[in-house]
Amino acid sequence: MKILVLNSGSSSLKFQLFDMTTMHTLATGLVEQIGESQSVTRMKFLKNNTAHTITADQPVHDHRQAITTMITLLKENRCLSGLKSLAGIGHRVVHGGERFQQPALINEHVSKIIEDLTPLAPLHNPANLMGIRVAREKAPLVPQVAVFDTAFHQTLPAHAYTYGLPYELYEKNRVRRYGFHGTSHYYVAKQAALHLGKNIDELKIISLHLGNGASCTAILNGRSIDTSMGMTPLEGLVMGTRCGDIDAGILFYLARETGRSMQELDDLLNKESGLKGICGENDMRTIIKQAGAGDGRAELALSVFCYRIKKYIGSYLAALNGADVLIFTGGIGENSPLVRARSCQDMENIGIAIDSAKNRSASAGSGSAGTLSPQIMEIQSKASSMKILVIPTNEELEIATQTLQHIQPDG
Amino acid sequence: MKILVLNSGSSSLKFQLFDMTTMHTLATGLVEQIGESQSVTRMKFLKNNTAHTITADQPVHDHRQAITTMITLLKENRCLSGLKSLAGIGHRVVHGGERFQQPALINEHVSKIIEDLTPLAPLHNPANLMGIRVAREKAPLVPQVAVFDTAFHQTLPAHAYTYGLPYELYEKNRVRRYGFHGTSHYYVAKQAALHLGKNIDELKIISLHLGNGASCTAILNGRSIDTSMGMTPLEGLVMGTRCGDIDAGILFYLARETGRSMQELDDLLNKESGLKGICGENDMRTIIKQAGAGDGRAELALSVFCYRIKKYIGSYLAALNGADVLIFTGGIGENSPLVRARSCQDMENIGIAIDSAKNRSASAGSGSAGTLSPQIMEIQSKASSMKILVIPTNEELEIATQTLQHIQPDG
Repeated sequence: MKILVLNSGSSSLKFQLFDMTTMHTLATGLVEQIGESQSVTRMKFLKNNTAHTITADQPVHDHRQAITTMITLLKENRCLSGLKSLAGIGHRVVHGGERFQQPALINEHVSKIIEDLTPLAPLHNPANLMGIRVAREKAPLVPQVAVFDTAFHQTLPAHAYTYGLPYELYEKNRVRRYGFHGTSHYYVAKQAALHLGKNIDELKIISLHLGNGASCTAILNGRSIDTSMGMTPLEGLVMGTRCGDIDAGILFYLARETGRSMQELDDLLNKESGLKGICGENDMRTIIKQAGAGDGRAELALSVFCYRIKKYIGSYLAALNGADVLIFTGGIGENSPLVRARSCQDMENIGIAIDSAKNRSASAGSGSAGTLSPQIMEIQSKASSMKILVIPTNEELEIATQTLQHIQPDG
Repeated sequence: MKILVLNSGSSSLKFQLFDMTTMHTLATGLVEQIGESQSVTRMKFLKNNTAHTITADQPVHDHRQAITTMITLLKENRCLSGLKSLAGIGHRVVHGGERFQQPALINEHVSKIIEDLTPLAPLHNPANLMGIRVAREKAPLVPQVAVFDTAFHQTLPAHAYTYGLPYELYEKNRVRRYGFHGTSHYYVAKQAALHLGKNIDELKIISLHLGNGASCTAILNGRSIDTSMGMTPLEGLVMGTRCGDIDAGILFYLARETGRSMQELDDLLNKESGLKGICGENDMRTIIKQAGAGDGRAELALSVFCYRIKKYIGSYLAALNGADVLIFTGGIGENSPLVRARSCQDMENIGIAIDSAKNRSASAGSGSAGTLSPQIMEIQSKASSMKILVIPTNEELEIATQTLQHIQPDG
C-alpha cells in the first residue's frame, strides 16, 4: 500500500513515496526553480536495496509539468505503476487556521477553506493549493488528504493563544497564536513515548525543532499547550534569517528613524535577520566553524541562538510544571552537539544536564529515510532529572501516516 | 539634609521631598494637566506627625510655572525654606541608552546627551529634560543628578541584549534591549537582600514589577542579566494598555489586511492593547471584580496576564540556573493576592509554591511613604524552595538615595 506525500512550494515541489506496509521510503525527490529558465529535478530511490540518485535540469514551466515529471520518474524507475495505484496522496498545507484541527479529506469545500485562509499564509497556502489542484486533476480517484502544519497546536488553551491585543482583532481578523511545525513536533513526541516505553498521555515534553526555521513546543499528555511560533512563523526562537521574538516598538522606531516601509521591514525581519542578521551567515555549520576560529560576530549569533532556546525551555518548564522529556530535532537539533550543549548549559539546578560524551556521539546524520524506526539517542547525564533525546524528525512519514489513518480510520 | 526628586512628564510634574538623615518623605506632590485650561495640583505633607493634603486647580501654563507652584507650596507649608537649602535634586530620566550605566551629575554636556537619546524615548526624554532645565534655572547652585530607568540593565550580557536583527541596526541605530523600571527592580532587590540578611552579591533574584507598566528582571549577584522590556517599554509582559510580546508578523498582516498606518499601529499597540485590549478595562482591580462576577473576557485578560508572568519566571529560572528569591512589586504586585497566586499556580515542581493565607494577608497598602523600611511580606509555603516576597517599591526614595550617593560618594 503506497502513499505519496507532496509539499508544494511557490517554485518547488517536494515529494516522497512510502510503502506503508513496511513504512519504508521508496523514493524521495524535488523539483526546484519551477518556472525559471533552469529548473532542477532530483530523485533518490531504492533499487535492489541500493540507493540511486537521478537528476535533470530541463526547464519545468509550472506545477502541472512538475507533477508530470515526477510521475514519469517514479514510473520509469519502477517505484510506482501510476498515480492510480496509490492508496492516497498526503499534502502538506501550512495554515489551517482554526478550521482544521485534524487532517482533512480534500474536496472542493476543503480547497475553498484553504484558499480562504490565504491571508494568514499569503506565500504558502496558495502554493500548497497549486499542488493539490494539479494532483487532483491527475489522480481524481485517489483520496487526497491535507495535513496542516498548524493542526497539532489547535489544542492551545486560550490563555496561550491570545495576544495582548484588541479582542476584535481575534474575532474579526483571526489574530491569534497558531504555531507551526506541528507535524514534526507531534511525530517526535510520539517517537519519544515509544522509545521510553510510555504512553504519550502520561508525558510532559518540551520539543525543539531547530532547522532553518525553529520552534519550541510544550506538550502535555500528547497535546500541544504552547508553542513559540505565533500567528506567523516569524515569532519565537531566532532562526536562519527570521528575527524571532523582538520588541514590536522597534518597527515603529525603524519606520520613524530610517524611513523603511512596511514591505521593507517585512523583508528585513523575514529574510535578512536571525543568524544571518547578526553575523552575515545563516548556516549553523559555518557559524560554528567561524565562531571556533575566533569570529566574534559568529560567536554572538551562536550565543543568542542558544540563549533564546534556553529561555524557551525554562518558560515551558513553568507552563508544564516541570517536564519529563526534552527533545532536539530538525537539522540543527539532530546534528549540532554544540548547540545542544550550549542551550542546556548551566541548567542542572532546574533538572537539565547533558552528558558530553553521549551528546558528542549523537549526531545521527539522521538515518530516517528508508528505516523503520529513527535512531533515537539519549544524551542526558545521571544528574539530569529530565530525559534529553535527539530524535530525527520525519514530517513526510508523519503526513503519510496521518493520510493513511484518515483514509482508513480502522486500518 | 534634604533631597528633592522630580519626575517630569510631558504634561505633569511629580515631586517628592526627602529628609535623607531620617529617610522620611517630607512631602509628595503632583501637578497634572500642565498647559490645559484646568490643571490639578496636589501635595501631601507631614505637619506635627499628621498627614495633610492640599489641592489647587488654577491653570498651570508650563513646567516653569509648575516648579514655581511646587516651590511656593513647599515653602508655605514649611517643608522647605527654598530650593537653595536642598542638598541635591534627583531627576528621573527614562532613557540613558548605552551612555549612562550610573546616575550622572547634570551639566550642559549631560543634558545634551539626554537630548541626543530622544529618538529612543521620543515622549519621555524631552519631558524629563524640561524638568531638568527649569530646575537648573531655578536652582543653579544645587547639584542635580539624572537617574536613568535603563541604567540598572546596562549589565545585560550581549547575548541577552542583542536582537536577531541585522547587526548594523545595533551599531548605527542603537537597536538593542535596554529595559526599563531599573530603579524599581534595583531597589526591591536590595530590600530583599536586607530582609533576608544576605549580601545581594550572593543572591539570584527574579523581580516582577507589575503596575500599569509591567516588567520582569533576572538579577544575578546584584546585576541585571535580563529583563522583559526591550528597546522600548512595549515588549515583555502584557500591560494595562501595551501588548507586551507579540509576533512582529502581526503588524505586517494588519497593515496588509486592515490598511492601518504605522502611526495607527503604534497607537493601537501602546494605547489600546494589553488588558484593555482583551477586555476593555485596564484597571486590574476592576478586571478581578468582573472576572469574579463571571465576565469571560475579564477572566481571559487575567489569565493571559498571569500566564505570561509565569512564563517569564520560568524563562529567568533557566537564565539564572535556579533562583533564591521571587519578588512581587508595583501596584498590582503589591496589592493583588489573586495575580500573585495565579502567576505562581502549579509551579511546585520547579520550586515555587505560595502559602495561600500568607498571600492573602500580604496586601500591604504598601506604607512606603514616610516609613524608614517598607513592610516586606514572605508568602512562600514550606514546599517552596524559593523565597517569595512582596516588597513595596519606592523609586523616588531610590532616586534620592542614588542622588545623594552621587553627590557625596563617601557620605
